[in-house]
Amino acid sequence: MSHNTFGHLFRVTTWGESHGIALGCVVDGCPPGIRFTLAEIQAWLDKRKPGQSRFVTQRREDDLVKVLSGVMMDADGETMITTGTPVSMMIENTDQRSKDYGEIARQYRPGHADYTYDLKYGIRDYRGGGRSSARETAARVAAGGLARKVVPGLNVRAALVQIGKHKIDRNNWDWNEVNNNPFFAPDPAIVPVWEQYLDSIRKAGSSIGAVVEVVAEGVPAGIGAPIYGKLDQDIASLLMSINAVKGVEIGEGFASAELTGEDNADEMRMGNDGNPIFLSNHAGGILGGISTGQPVIARFAIKPTSSILTERRSIDADGNNVDLRTKGRHDPCVGIRAVPIGEAMVACAVADHYLRDRGQTGRLK
Amino acid sequence: MSHNTFGHLFRVTTWGESHGIALGCVVDGCPPGIRFTLAEIQAWLDKRKPGQSRFVTQRREDDLVKVLSGVMMDADGETMITTGTPVSMMIENTDQRSKDYGEIARQYRPGHADYTYDLKYGIRDYRGGGRSSARETAARVAAGGLARKVVPGLNVRAALVQIGKHKIDRNNWDWNEVNNNPFFAPDPAIVPVWEQYLDSIRKAGSSIGAVVEVVAEGVPAGIGAPIYGKLDQDIASLLMSINAVKGVEIGEGFASAELTGEDNADEMRMGNDGNPIFLSNHAGGILGGISTGQPVIARFAIKPTSSILTERRSIDADGNNVDLRTKGRHDPCVGIRAVPIGEAMVACAVADHYLRDRGQTGRLK
Amino acid sequence: MSHNTFGHLFRVTTWGESHGIALGCVVDGCPPGIRFTLAEIQAWLDKRKPGQSRFVTQRREDDLVKVLSGVMMDADGETMITTGTPVSMMIENTDQRSKDYGEIARQYRPGHADYTYDLKYGIRDYRGGGRSSARETAARVAAGGLARKVVPGLNVRAALVQIGKHKIDRNNWDWNEVNNNPFFAPDPAIVPVWEQYLDSIRKAGSSIGAVVEVVAEGVPAGIGAPIYGKLDQDIASLLMSINAVKGVEIGEGFASAELTGEDNADEMRMGNDGNPIFLSNHAGGILGGISTGQPVIARFAIKPTSSILTERRSIDADGNNVDLRTKGRHDPCVGIRAVPIGEAMVACAVADHYLRDRGQTGRLK
Amino acid sequence: MSHNTFGHLFRVTTWGESHGIALGCVVDGCPPGIRFTLAEIQAWLDKRKPGQSRFVTQRREDDLVKVLSGVMMDADGETMITTGTPVSMMIENTDQRSKDYGEIARQYRPGHADYTYDLKYGIRDYRGGGRSSARETAARVAAGGLARKVVPGLNVRAALVQIGKHKIDRNNWDWNEVNNNPFFAPDPAIVPVWEQYLDSIRKAGSSIGAVVEVVAEGVPAGIGAPIYGKLDQDIASLLMSINAVKGVEIGEGFASAELTGEDNADEMRMGNDGNPIFLSNHAGGILGGISTGQPVIARFAIKPTSSILTERRSIDADGNNVDLRTKGRHDPCVGIRAVPIGEAMVACAVADHYLRDRGQTGRLK
Repeated sequence: MSHNTFGHLFRVTTWGESHGIALGCVVDGCPPGIRFTLAEIQAWLDKRKPGQSRFVTQRREDDLVKVLSGVMMDADGETMITTGTPVSMMIENTDQRSKDYGEIARQYRPGHADYTYDLKYGIRDYRGGGRSSARETAARVAAGGLARKVVPGLNVRAALVQIGKHKIDRNNWDWNEVNNNPFFAPDPAIVPVWEQYLDSIRKAGSSIGAVVEVVAEGVPAGIGAPIYGKLDQDIASLLMSINAVKGVEIGEGFASAELTGEDNADEMRMGNDGNPIFLSNHAGGILGGISTGQPVIARFAIKPTSSILTERRSIDADGNNVDLRTKGRHDPCVGIRAVPIGEAMVACAVADHYLRDRGQTGRLK
Repeated sequence: MSHNTFGHLFRVTTWGESHGIALGCVVDGCPPGIRFTLAEIQAWLDKRKPGQSRFVTQRREDDLVKVLSGVMMDADGETMITTGTPVSMMIENTDQRSKDYGEIARQYRPGHADYTYDLKYGIRDYRGGGRSSARETAARVAAGGLARKVVPGLNVRAALVQIGKHKIDRNNWDWNEVNNNPFFAPDPAIVPVWEQYLDSIRKAGSSIGAVVEVVAEGVPAGIGAPIYGKLDQDIASLLMSINAVKGVEIGEGFASAELTGEDNADEMRMGNDGNPIFLSNHAGGILGGISTGQPVIARFAIKPTSSILTERRSIDADGNNVDLRTKGRHDPCVGIRAVPIGEAMVACAVADHYLRDRGQTGRLK
Repeated sequence: MSHNTFGHLFRVTTWGESHGIALGCVVDGCPPGIRFTLAEIQAWLDKRKPGQSRFVTQRREDDLVKVLSGVMMDADGETMITTGTPVSMMIENTDQRSKDYGEIARQYRPGHADYTYDLKYGIRDYRGGGRSSARETAARVAAGGLARKVVPGLNVRAALVQIGKHKIDRNNWDWNEVNNNPFFAPDPAIVPVWEQYLDSIRKAGSSIGAVVEVVAEGVPAGIGAPIYGKLDQDIASLLMSINAVKGVEIGEGFASAELTGEDNADEMRMGNDGNPIFLSNHAGGILGGISTGQPVIARFAIKPTSSILTERRSIDADGNNVDLRTKGRHDPCVGIRAVPIGEAMVACAVADHYLRDRGQTGRLK
Repeated sequence: MSHNTFGHLFRVTTWGESHGIALGCVVDGCPPGIRFTLAEIQAWLDKRKPGQSRFVTQRREDDLVKVLSGVMMDADGETMITTGTPVSMMIENTDQRSKDYGEIARQYRPGHADYTYDLKYGIRDYRGGGRSSARETAARVAAGGLARKVVPGLNVRAALVQIGKHKIDRNNWDWNEVNNNPFFAPDPAIVPVWEQYLDSIRKAGSSIGAVVEVVAEGVPAGIGAPIYGKLDQDIASLLMSINAVKGVEIGEGFASAELTGEDNADEMRMGNDGNPIFLSNHAGGILGGISTGQPVIARFAIKPTSSILTERRSIDADGNNVDLRTKGRHDPCVGIRAVPIGEAMVACAVADHYLRDRGQTGRLK
């Protein structure tokens, strides 16, 4: 079973806890001959790492990734070439000083997995959330960096499209803006609105939910595996596996409930170049679980950070009522840092289906 | 890989096409000693079968299920007892007369999987959509009937909560009403609204989307398998695998984007009986991928039926532009018949995680 | 998990009991465009079916196979073409009259799985061994018939090489002889020896073990998936899963324990045609889990049929000592009918690895 | 797919190359609450490590294992307690100096996986065999150390029973002797024979094959998963996955080909304590793929080390004929160091099936 593994041919196993010695992933099934540099992988991790603006947690984690296996170094001493064997990547936790966790070790923080981990396992690593910490997603982002290299021409990008009730204006969408603001917002007009709003949230020690949209261009047409390995199904599964995600949409998503068949139909015509053209993309690039060749579009909703300064009622492991507030440096809106994670998940899903279609080695393409 | 299989310990493999000889499923991993009657399974299939009101397709499919293996008959000649070996269930297609499919065999119906199946496989069963037909879901419903028996005390129910822009009033929610109307609506006040609206859709040869909500009560606390076999992840995956589903939510879902941490927190207190009590259920019964013991709540959006009478532009397999309208008896709102399918998917996911926790045989419980 | 399923991309799920309504298999992952006739599949089943000589059980089972899904019929009305969707095949049990099983239902036959099924499941289908009956292997043989079609140029053949202490003379090996005698013996000189020996075994109501050798020619070089999906590992796994098999060898097998490195080395030279040549095949066509392009050679040992007329000591489900002899029509040497089963298992393993290498659809070759 | 992973509930993924930075494994599915010390795991690695006698390779590898995740340290600062999350273990390669591999990088050593890795991947790590090196088995042994802790009362031991033509006398079998000689021989009388024989092999720069026998006591009755997850099948699969293994037997193994049904039957009687007793163990503790409660007995044959000093004919990657001899410090009989590896594989298989039966968490036992 795949409790800590996802993917079939591009298989990623992650391990590690928030405050353990290290965390990492093993990517099994990466085809041979993929060329990449450590800097390329690190760039994605840097995008996710904390402390980059006042709107994300101020914890210091360098998240430096090492590649331990599965590659040969090219003559340039920089480019790594995959050999088809497992690529093991590790991120050491630089700061794991043993602090006194005191009461927190036995108290159940509302919205966190403390209570349920204890229910299931009877024991849990209470240091920073242990395995249930979003710190695990660093390993996903590393794997995603490799996944992007597997599919020629694949371009997976994401943007934050909603914080609280404040949504972007889709008419303003400009991918070039996404890296020009601390929110990965594609609409520059929303930036001052979000700044002001998140400042108020942050100062109140509160938190707020968000919506992220992922767009994958260059997804080859014809990949996906019906009935139970549909491309949209696997994307939904992986996005839902991200900490704090509570909803996932493909294409029109929930809006499709309000559409008629006429409005929702993505009509087709033969293009002048002899290739089929879709006249719209309500489907989000997937029909019957298989890619159409259009951009694959997915969105996911992230609940507000559960760690807030306001006291909430809870219980502890001994069955006492307690009132808890979670001190420390937390993200007022975890949705921001979820942007590169969502990209990584979609990249991994696409790489996996690409290989299912083309085979393990890529030898014969 | 699990292209036509889902689940890990409660594993369901489905097979069959819309207009083939038969369709069915093999349920592998059903624990021994589960007692059920054929009538109980058939009841769920009857709930899904067409022709039960003017609001669903008028095709005639009896969908009579047979159990071919995996059981011993009890002395009463009616109760089947599982032996722990694969339960094979089959539904014969009673009406597969070879009609002339003519042009449809080579034309790509917008919104259907015709184009993508051809892209992927280079060949497809064009008779009624072949494998991509929603007829495959009959096998899921049969498997779900068995899944419900696996978890003692489990009660999975679903209801239609939205058709087009018309949503139920949640204050009116009454489970007893769900089977009193042709829509599985929990709110009797919405029934005349939907009747009138769907009649107009139906008469226009159009179709409309919908939203279904599934509620699973009696899900044991502490099941679910982080990080990549989370209960909510598996539910999202299975719901997204249903034909025409474009969005999935758990608990607050997309609404959580607009909530603050304070509002979203499910606070806890010790109950008078010494058991923990949650004071709300924004999480939808799952934290960190593990069940809390509260009801598990999921919703999914279904796009409008792609088969409509209005002509749409498309192409055929030879690269010609064509204008298509889909004649025949189609569901004006496939969301209605998706209600028992959604139930089945959630029941299977819960049964699977229950067994992951308790083991394959149930021998030692 | 894959309790009743094997293979990764060419995935076979079998179901059914010895005396149930039917048994069958679902082959998921068969590429589209594979052409075959029912007669071709039936031919392999006929090779396995009982009653073909006095040296195998005289039970009457026609083992007529039906294909229920996953194919389109070609214009000739005979050739089936796979569509890439699951191929469901079924063999109905023609004779399942409800006889009185009496004591046998609670007694544990030595060497059979009666005791262990009860241990594991607490219930078992005692009719003819239920799921543990070798009758299940009919489904494997059907799947193997399809597997043979998947790999162009693949030729999998097997022969019986030992019954009791009587081994064939390998210098006499002639594949043309294999179907000229009731033992699948490749050495005509051994036939009269085995006839006389097995007649004595049969008349005594006894049974005897055997060894089968499988040779797969046309296995493409370079398939196999180290470290834990090695081609030899998967062959060993599948051969060991056959009822009554107690040992498996690849190439030299146990004889390699007595070889020096010099003797065991398969030396290579470049051939006149510019292709590498191996000068021997001690390895059995597999190095490091990957095929070399030479014939893949495997052997397996089958224990004597456990059902014998001589009384053996045992117990029953109530904890009583009993003395048992197994009446009925049993194979004096199950090794004979294991020949086509071994072929099927190797064909399936090769097909699976072929597809892992080349991908799911075969579209791009 | 599980190319570098084995097991279903006790899932082990290994990674790393012979001369890479490190190698290791991730054990996913280890139940919570398992207590162990690093020293206990290290002890198994020490048993496998080279340089412990003149009969094994003189390479220096300390094989010090680290546990990176999945545990909490007990108050004693020494005992680790598993939390149910992935246990990542790593062994750093202390000596990876970049030496000049010269011709060896392009030459195919007979009997090694050089040729087939190039066939499959088109690239390979030629340093010390890369991923195909037996060095990978260090990770298996670490995982096996944990597996032993999972099943209460499990005792898995192995011994070398044959080197070349020299077999032990089974009447002399004494487990206490196994660790008293450099061969893991259970028969002290064979030790001087093997010493003299292996010295001659070693001095000649030659190598020789061997047979290892593994005995697992304390395997709970009733575990194993027919039809395609049989306990003996999984053991065969894992033993066959060990480098250089060419044959696997359970119980009587190939000898069963020469037994009659009467001789092979393991008769039963009720014991004085009210528990069933088997009067023999020809089956090797497994019937129908399920454990009987008797010791599980498996044997495997290892071919002679392929690296020998005598020149062998081969080719290189450029299609030239070459004559190769493999210099360096090699094991004259790799069978010796395979003893702890075989133990580890059987321990892992048993732990996996134990958990399949009892469930993931062990919470309810």
